[in-house]
Amino acid sequence: MPDESGKSLIKLNHLALIVDDMDAALRFWGESLGLSAAGERRTVAAESVEIAFLSLGDARLELIKPTSDDSGVAKYLAKKGPGMHHVCLEVRDLEARLAELAEAGCELINDKPRERDGRRYAFVHPASTGGVLLELYERG
Amino acid sequence: MPDESGKSLIKLNHLALIVDDMDAALRFWGESLGLSAAGERRTVAAESVEIAFLSLGDARLELIKPTSDDSGVAKYLAKKGPGMHHVCLEVRDLEARLAELAEAGCELINDKPRERDGRRYAFVHPASTGGVLLELYERG
Repeated sequence: MPDESGKSLIKLNHLALIVDDMDAALRFWGESLGLSAAGERRTVAAESVEIAFLSLGDARLELIKPTSDDSGVAKYLAKKGPGMHHVCLEVRDLEARLAELAEAGCELINDKPRERDGRRYAFVHPASTGGVLLELYERG
Repeated sequence: MPDESGKSLIKLNHLALIVDDMDAALRFWGESLGLSAAGERRTVAAESVEIAFLSLGDARLELIKPTSDDSGVAKYLAKKGPGMHHVCLEVRDLEARLAELAEAGCELINDKPRERDGRRYAFVHPASTGGVLLELYERG
């Protein structure tokens, strides 16, 4: 049931995995399991990562591979090994959601929306979510 | 585009988190973030866990809390801390999917479907997926 706050409109946007072997990950999720590509595999030089997206129903699976040894993602991979990195949920009115979460005592990594390419997002710390790095995202 | 193998019909069924504090997890995902309950919070004595499901679009978020210290889930929590436990995808023709994955050299935890309550499922080892425990599930 829709509610006035818009909270009920939350949906999964993507799941992000950090992988140490992009070819092997694409072979598994793409060729063997059969998820179709959702965009080009590409390098994001500014973040020192290579990424690829696959379709997962109306959400996506993001594969992230570090391309240098000193990025945050590379350090995460070195420390924790490959696997789930974050869950991204699509919300309405991101600013209001963040204010509500802060009010409820949640630990926000970004207490205001960040913006890139017209895309607004903010991360919630795993300490508040039960151990999962959570990205909240609002369509532009 | 639909294909003959039925692979393109894969969708996310649920994401499962292992939590160490069910009340806190429900406060965050339910009350603070606003995901609605999808079924009753309940204890599954046979598996020594308490579980709760929340709606995530047409998928669900499963929260799992061990109720004893010696279950597999309790050991996982003790070793890795709270966080993502597995991803469950819904597939058609589970038996054929498992055969294809085995043929492709993937490491299957269950090479034949297991069954409980008319529900057929099998797990794929994180070694083959890029670090994520993957459940494949077929509707009865």
